[in-house]
Amino acid sequence: MKKAAAGTVPPRARMIDAAIALMRQSGLGGAGINEVVRASRAPKGSVYHFFPGGKEQLAGEALGVYSQRVIAFLDEALSRKRAPAEKVKALFEAFAIRIEDGDFRQSCAAGAVCLDLGPDLDGLREVIAETFAEWTESIARHFEFRDRARTKSFARLLLTAIEGAYIRGRAERSGRPFREAGVWLAELAAREQAGR
Amino acid sequence: MKKAAAGTVPPRARMIDAAIALMRQSGLGGAGINEVVRASRAPKGSVYHFFPGGKEQLAGEALGVYSQRVIAFLDEALSRKRAPAEKVKALFEAFAIRIEDGDFRQSCAAGAVCLDLGPDLDGLREVIAETFAEWTESIARHFEFRDRARTKSFARLLLTAIEGAYIRGRAERSGRPFREAGVWLAELAAREQAGR
Repeated sequence: MKKAAAGTVPPRARMIDAAIALMRQSGLGGAGINEVVRASRAPKGSVYHFFPGGKEQLAGEALGVYSQRVIAFLDEALSRKRAPAEKVKALFEAFAIRIEDGDFRQSCAAGAVCLDLGPDLDGLREVIAETFAEWTESIARHFEFRDRARTKSFARLLLTAIEGAYIRGRAERSGRPFREAGVWLAELAAREQAGR
Repeated sequence: MKKAAAGTVPPRARMIDAAIALMRQSGLGGAGINEVVRASRAPKGSVYHFFPGGKEQLAGEALGVYSQRVIAFLDEALSRKRAPAEKVKALFEAFAIRIEDGDFRQSCAAGAVCLDLGPDLDGLREVIAETFAEWTESIARHFEFRDRARTKSFARLLLTAIEGAYIRGRAERSGRPFREAGVWLAELAAREQAGR
């Protein structure tokens, strides 16, 4: 691969970025090779050069890059506050702003792809399951409830609510589903912390 | 439209049913005219005869039929128990069984379609937003907390968790995301009911 000129993104990374944006908007159906080529302004032949496994390989690698970005986002949002309830609210506020900034047209790439998968793409399903496990681990590291199992279970609940709030937020063109879930789940966090 | 022979489903209803099943599996991308024609064994021309608006009209009508079935499902599950916490658990248990029965390949048609929509299909987005509003009304009718606004907010939280649990449940091929959310949200319902 040639070194990119200063200020430009190399074509392979451009294709990954295009695939992420397309998956966030329209799931797997929107992230076909033709769409990625068009959005990344890459020559069509180069997709198969960089991703000989085609759409499935490209989607899998794009989900891997996306996952690392989400982990950084989760860590940043959850580090803003110290009390568990405030952490929960900060997390859902951050996602509310994220969906607003994307004009309610971009949601979670993993969630959107997951709901498009037929039995032929079980490899991608496994990638998404591992991605979710990594995210819940990342969330759980920011909480310390009475025991580790309970903390991890709460982290999984938060991820469930985030994925669902993306769906409702896109349908309703609103950040409210995130903020509303944040308030309720912050109550749970406060009570859990207090051992009630 | 000719009357169907006894025991057969008329072609229009077959197309609607096929569209629902395809949307539940793969969202809008999987529910194209060709796929619906194949799955419903209807002559291709008849799709445009019954649905002159094409894919968007078919998807919109299918979502309307689907929505009524979901409301019946919600009412049935939420009527099984009297105490709010038990109602919540019964609801999430019913969805856990639903995703298991579909071998983790069928989720919510509205949720799956919603994450596939580009700006060109804003009419379908509005259909989904109205569908979600109807579902939260249906859920809220089964609860009676200290005030109506709080009850409706809790119903919206339940819907958020249901949509998110479908995503995680499909990825992980498990009913656990539903059952786990049900236990946590039942705690909220119990405390809300007790006014704590």
